[in-house]
Amino acid sequence: MSAFAELMAYTRETQALGEIAGRLGWDQETMMPAGAAPQRGEEMAAIEAVLHARRASPEVADWLAQAEAPDATGAAQLREIKRSYDRTVKVPADLAKEIAKVTSQAQGKWAAARAAEDVAAFVPVLKEVVALKREEGQALAAGGDLYDAMVADYEHETTAAEIAAIFDAMRPGLVDLRSRVLEKPTPKGLVGEFDEAAQMQLTAKLAQAFGYDLDHGRVDKAVHPFSSGSGLDVRITTRTNKADPFNCFYSTIHEVGHAAYEQNISHDYLLTPLGRGVSMGVHESQSRIYENQIGRGEAFTTWLFAEMREVFGDFGIEDAGSFYKAVNTVHKGYIRTEADELQYNLHIMLRFDLERALMAGDLEVEDLEAAWNDRFEADFGYAVDRPSNGCLQDVHWSVGLFGYFPTYSLGNVYAGCLNQKMRGDLPGLDQELATGDTSSATGWLRENLQQFGGLRSPRDTIQNASGMVPDHAPLMSYLEEKFTRIYGL
Amino acid sequence: MSAFAELMAYTRETQALGEIAGRLGWDQETMMPAGAAPQRGEEMAAIEAVLHARRASPEVADWLAQAEAPDATGAAQLREIKRSYDRTVKVPADLAKEIAKVTSQAQGKWAAARAAEDVAAFVPVLKEVVALKREEGQALAAGGDLYDAMVADYEHETTAAEIAAIFDAMRPGLVDLRSRVLEKPTPKGLVGEFDEAAQMQLTAKLAQAFGYDLDHGRVDKAVHPFSSGSGLDVRITTRTNKADPFNCFYSTIHEVGHAAYEQNISHDYLLTPLGRGVSMGVHESQSRIYENQIGRGEAFTTWLFAEMREVFGDFGIEDAGSFYKAVNTVHKGYIRTEADELQYNLHIMLRFDLERALMAGDLEVEDLEAAWNDRFEADFGYAVDRPSNGCLQDVHWSVGLFGYFPTYSLGNVYAGCLNQKMRGDLPGLDQELATGDTSSATGWLRENLQQFGGLRSPRDTIQNASGMVPDHAPLMSYLEEKFTRIYGL
Repeated sequence: MSAFAELMAYTRETQALGEIAGRLGWDQETMMPAGAAPQRGEEMAAIEAVLHARRASPEVADWLAQAEAPDATGAAQLREIKRSYDRTVKVPADLAKEIAKVTSQAQGKWAAARAAEDVAAFVPVLKEVVALKREEGQALAAGGDLYDAMVADYEHETTAAEIAAIFDAMRPGLVDLRSRVLEKPTPKGLVGEFDEAAQMQLTAKLAQAFGYDLDHGRVDKAVHPFSSGSGLDVRITTRTNKADPFNCFYSTIHEVGHAAYEQNISHDYLLTPLGRGVSMGVHESQSRIYENQIGRGEAFTTWLFAEMREVFGDFGIEDAGSFYKAVNTVHKGYIRTEADELQYNLHIMLRFDLERALMAGDLEVEDLEAAWNDRFEADFGYAVDRPSNGCLQDVHWSVGLFGYFPTYSLGNVYAGCLNQKMRGDLPGLDQELATGDTSSATGWLRENLQQFGGLRSPRDTIQNASGMVPDHAPLMSYLEEKFTRIYGL
Repeated sequence: MSAFAELMAYTRETQALGEIAGRLGWDQETMMPAGAAPQRGEEMAAIEAVLHARRASPEVADWLAQAEAPDATGAAQLREIKRSYDRTVKVPADLAKEIAKVTSQAQGKWAAARAAEDVAAFVPVLKEVVALKREEGQALAAGGDLYDAMVADYEHETTAAEIAAIFDAMRPGLVDLRSRVLEKPTPKGLVGEFDEAAQMQLTAKLAQAFGYDLDHGRVDKAVHPFSSGSGLDVRITTRTNKADPFNCFYSTIHEVGHAAYEQNISHDYLLTPLGRGVSMGVHESQSRIYENQIGRGEAFTTWLFAEMREVFGDFGIEDAGSFYKAVNTVHKGYIRTEADELQYNLHIMLRFDLERALMAGDLEVEDLEAAWNDRFEADFGYAVDRPSNGCLQDVHWSVGLFGYFPTYSLGNVYAGCLNQKMRGDLPGLDQELATGDTSSATGWLRENLQQFGGLRSPRDTIQNASGMVPDHAPLMSYLEEKFTRIYGL
């Protein structure tokens, strides 16, 4: 066997093991009996150790030195294997272990601090996490910007400066739009209770309406909705709440966006580095365009209204027009995960600026709460009332996720670009969506983006599909137009 | 760290990975979407390769050479690690691969041959399997008896000659008892349909009645009931059939016997070689004593009758006495897995003698069908009507399982010994069982057998608990007495 073939066979086996580790995570959130947790911790550590050893194996370096790609796809595979190898060996094993240990403790301390509304109790361990992550960032950056190196873990070939340029350009317009919207009366909401088993039945119908392939996936309930797995086994979870069926339905559509992306990648790339979604931002572009530009659009909600009427009877909304407004209501609120399409990006920008400053050493952990609260009031127009609604609301920093937050809004920006191009290519799309038929839209995304997996960089993936360098303008005009109409601005 | 500590830490990690592989098998039978099968095959092969490499690692030999056990338990751990290591390295890697390849094909050919009632279509590949397994047996036996070496994979320190002595002593009595029973009229059976969701609710109650800990386990449906996992995560499956609720309930009780054994092993042995059921035979002794000596006993069925009446109303059985007979009905039949407590062992003895002859070279694969049919008619009194009811009924030989069948009946023999001792120790047991309270019985098994896991050999495990060398006499008098009373012989 050639070095290339050996390396590909080895990588394929590593990736198969990675799928197992991922499915173990799925099991933990959906099926695992509660008392199994301590043993599961050891199991997870054991397979992570196997994966790390394989990824950092000197054999990989030898093969990379000798391998010759047979074609352009092979060259892309080598590029991705090299990126993963370089990233893995850059971080000293002792540092990686220390980070794993400290973040594991920090997560528990964060949860306790949040429950107690006690920022001071979280500060010491967050300082440790920040210090360790900066050390890791320096190792990864090898002289470059350490926060850029962190972003590269989730969105490679994208710099913090590029992201900041996009975010800074969006922020004033978003602040202005949200303040104009919130001056208007709130549209009428749903009333009554919505049977949870019936929600799950309609959720399955929605998943299939968006092209989710249940022969290669399944839908279960979990506390936090997520998508898990690549290739032939991509599972999603959702949740139900008697009072709020939209939470269930739009969580499902969002996760179907992630899962359909994985399912629609060319099977030529199965269990190879190209056989997974290329980045968190591009992944989020798919979940967001399914959820928002398609799922919360006026056309599709016409169909959903009729479906919900059939399943749940009268729930206090008399026509599709009012239903569309109810789906897209903009609310005051402190919590990122509960934010609407308009305000979500403001939550992200706040976190991006603060974590970037933390990593640059321009902000001390002790000053984080004040910085958060100032920024929140500036962008949202009212003060944070308590830490669990402020800087203690997200788990991310406690577990060492820095550089991850901006990919959520990058996904929205990408979705804006894709939506603009897709609408141009499919002028009759809304007639189809109004009948619950998403096949042209999801087919367009499959053909123009999803099938390529990791073949191109995130930026090139978006540019190849949308015909433009990622830019905030399409998202901003989409939001401006949508909420101007809904709220009669 | 000492060599002993290093070896134990390494083994613990291997065993954690083994638990992951086992849970992947559980997922495949319960949760996996059908289309994921090809990818799952690669995942399973990848983790099996990791496990094999770890088990056969020269490091293990080095540690074994240097390790000093700190105490008797440590010595037992070393004994088990050495047994596993020796077994793994005895079989050449190429032979192991060839067996995996051929048996994987053979299973498909067996299924097709069974569906087509075509023994001749199965003979060539079974010849290959037999030849390869004999080669493996020679490697394992290292000069000893090759079938003994195969049995040792499932029931170590037990020879085929010892098993044959027990089986040969039982066979005439069983043949005689079954012929006397089948001359009598068949007791009245259940009538009507039994809601499958209600069966699953009662199955959960039964599982808990037998001490199954749902905080460290779960019950799902699968085509074939099984128990999976060790330590803190031991899951079972069952199945439902509208016409036959006993299939569901007694499958559940059987699997709870396996699972409770795993759950009740001392947590001091968690993720160590002693932290699993010691052998297939001892495992089967637990599933059988739960299912038969306890679950199909007159006392417990009194409670079950009342429970079923409450859930299902009238199902054509008017009192607990008739219900007890219905639970223990002896039927004519060809299929091992559908056999009753009395005839099951005759099915096993037939297979044991034939597979032992195949491995010894005393029986050719071409002559297997005739040998099967002759033996069946001799023991059961009527002729096999078609191959799927004869030598093509079981998957075992196609996948290379030789030496496994006898452990089913060894389990029954062990259960007989245990039951005799337990009844002596707990004279008031039946009063408790009649109220659905199995805690004294399951507590006795936990204290006297289950908690010890792999500490002693299978034989010593039974002897330690029952106070006797495993012997067929208790099982035979139990069966004779039980069926004499039920059938008024």
